[in-house]
Amino acid sequence: MAISPLAPASFPDLFVIEGVRFASIAAGVKYNDRQDVMLVELAAGTAVAGVFTRSATRSAPVLDCQSKMGGAADGRAAILVNSGNSNAFTGAAGERSVAAICDAVGAATGIQTDRIFTASTGVIGERLPHDRITAKVIDLAEGLTSSGIKDAAQAIMTTDTFPKGACAEVVIDEKTVRIAGIAKGSGMIAPDMATMLVYIFTDAKISQADLQTLLATLTDQTFNCITVDSDTSTSDSLMCAATGASGVDVTNSAGFTQTLHGVMLNLAHQVVRDGEGATKFVEVRVSGAASDADARKVGLSIANSPLVKTAIAGEDPNWGRIVMAVGKSGAQADRDRLTIRFGDILVAENGWVSPDYTEAAGAAYMKQQDLIIAVDLGIAGGLGTVWTCDLTHGYITINADYRS
Amino acid sequence: MAISPLAPASFPDLFVIEGVRFASIAAGVKYNDRQDVMLVELAAGTAVAGVFTRSATRSAPVLDCQSKMGGAADGRAAILVNSGNSNAFTGAAGERSVAAICDAVGAATGIQTDRIFTASTGVIGERLPHDRITAKVIDLAEGLTSSGIKDAAQAIMTTDTFPKGACAEVVIDEKTVRIAGIAKGSGMIAPDMATMLVYIFTDAKISQADLQTLLATLTDQTFNCITVDSDTSTSDSLMCAATGASGVDVTNSAGFTQTLHGVMLNLAHQVVRDGEGATKFVEVRVSGAASDADARKVGLSIANSPLVKTAIAGEDPNWGRIVMAVGKSGAQADRDRLTIRFGDILVAENGWVSPDYTEAAGAAYMKQQDLIIAVDLGIAGGLGTVWTCDLTHGYITINADYRS
Repeated sequence: MAISPLAPASFPDLFVIEGVRFASIAAGVKYNDRQDVMLVELAAGTAVAGVFTRSATRSAPVLDCQSKMGGAADGRAAILVNSGNSNAFTGAAGERSVAAICDAVGAATGIQTDRIFTASTGVIGERLPHDRITAKVIDLAEGLTSSGIKDAAQAIMTTDTFPKGACAEVVIDEKTVRIAGIAKGSGMIAPDMATMLVYIFTDAKISQADLQTLLATLTDQTFNCITVDSDTSTSDSLMCAATGASGVDVTNSAGFTQTLHGVMLNLAHQVVRDGEGATKFVEVRVSGAASDADARKVGLSIANSPLVKTAIAGEDPNWGRIVMAVGKSGAQADRDRLTIRFGDILVAENGWVSPDYTEAAGAAYMKQQDLIIAVDLGIAGGLGTVWTCDLTHGYITINADYRS
Repeated sequence: MAISPLAPASFPDLFVIEGVRFASIAAGVKYNDRQDVMLVELAAGTAVAGVFTRSATRSAPVLDCQSKMGGAADGRAAILVNSGNSNAFTGAAGERSVAAICDAVGAATGIQTDRIFTASTGVIGERLPHDRITAKVIDLAEGLTSSGIKDAAQAIMTTDTFPKGACAEVVIDEKTVRIAGIAKGSGMIAPDMATMLVYIFTDAKISQADLQTLLATLTDQTFNCITVDSDTSTSDSLMCAATGASGVDVTNSAGFTQTLHGVMLNLAHQVVRDGEGATKFVEVRVSGAASDADARKVGLSIANSPLVKTAIAGEDPNWGRIVMAVGKSGAQADRDRLTIRFGDILVAENGWVSPDYTEAAGAAYMKQQDLIIAVDLGIAGGLGTVWTCDLTHGYITINADYRS
């Protein structure tokens, strides 16, 4: 498949995070021509936090990870991820596959199974051939290296058109703390693919409980503010591992929070930029709402509207559809206080199109690849931003024709 | 535009309803080659009930109709509808246009303006050229005829590919009561088009208050159970007028309720069958939910899922996406109690694919034009049914390319 036109120029040169080693291998879970399993080893004492899909039909590995979060954190830990099969909706066999993989990783690495986390991404409802994975676990353990993150980013891809990575560093108390993360995702749920997986590593020192709180807060501001098609995966998993190797305690550090937020937002935007069939990257900024929650409602209503998304695909400055999406959102809104802007162009205000707005200016703006739609509700101070992509023939082609 | 492949063979021969007269005319509001305004005159004493969009950005005529509902019902009444322009998001000018039209209809017919209801359907945000309508009102009043309902159904169309009508009669106390209705709509909101309009007429005798209650209840079971693209119009209006000419009091009549329900469901299904780009008509039946509300949530989650809808378009029996849509719905669900059927074919049960299910059987079923997806949650007795269509390249073409 062609690389998304919205992809970054290249995969970034990610920092090595002390205390984290990676290995990838071709296990033939489904794909035969590429690496499809990654193993991550985390040094003893690493705090591991996670945020998972709220789907009522979440996968066996998600349920297993959730049950293990917040346990003892003194020993080493591991994360094993396969692509090609999501091990979702596979009944009791799904849980047996997770147990078999954790047992194999434990035997090969000496890590306790309650510190071994797995994820699977791929087709829903087909039994995971876990023997293909367990057969490779010793090779994986022997191949662990601190420089293997790029291969890992590729091993977890399904229909992604490019691997996704981001990193940043911050100086706290004159010492450097580093963060590096990888993600996969191409639609809230890629075609049949139980989709978004994110793994972030840092050498910061922080307790599991504090890391968990921070991760949940920042997820609400980043990964929970993106939408490709409004569908929710059975396998979405986001984990952050803090090895503490820098020796810098980042508890309540604004600098660390801001830096981690930046890495997460960068990865979240890359997921949108790899949205199925996407040709436009759209930021929807909502202000003046009765509350932040209302702003988010309006933002998601606009970002999820098929009519708004198809208009963007057609480079049509169709602001009437934005009015419609505001109206249906369920948020408090008043037609006569609504202001709509495309970038810096004032489109509508006071309940009608702006007298200075011209269709030609709107149409010219829509030809850009990155767009900003700004809506002010004029009610109070509620704020929210959501990121999305357009809805194109490419999306239909990918999703109508994928399995058959 | 080609007529939808899901359209009925022909427009039905609708009953004449005593006390109701229709006229249609070409006023050139936007279209130049067709009738675009309809006027309906209702006999003195007709009870008029209405259900309207809950959009926070609803149009000027919707706001005007809502303010007039439930008023005195002794005099004659009128309904005037134009297509081509929705008079939505048009500021104070929108209200002036409604007033000008009501004044003109009042002058031409002698009907009090608080018994004159209007609707406009078409582009959002452009000033309604109401002079073109008021110039034709005398001609409309002179052309009123009891047999004009088919022309009226055509005059209110925008992007509809066929006019929509339905009728039924019921014998109560040995007397016949008749119902006839028309609708327009082609997507929750058609391209730029403030969309669904429904007008139902009956010679039954019923108070305005009772008719209003009945209409609201039946709307929840019919028009509020259909979805094409999850978008909500700024102009959706459904009105029912009961002239009482049959002399049959239908207050609390189960027979009348059932018959009206049938006419409304028929019209609602026709709207789905004219969904933009639709090639499949899909009934989503949900049972076993914790409540009827939960069943509806699951039904709408499936019916609105772009991944489910594109799979249907591709004739792909992709039941994994149905599992996903159940999971994201927010309704109470348990993976291991879920049963999924395509028509009579058992697809999944007990948390996994059914041992008897074959992909070939599912694929063969998906080739039908009318499909039933049945989901049982196995929790309690909650029931709900939702109707939708597939999401195709046709939808993208219509909506990405419409205005430009």
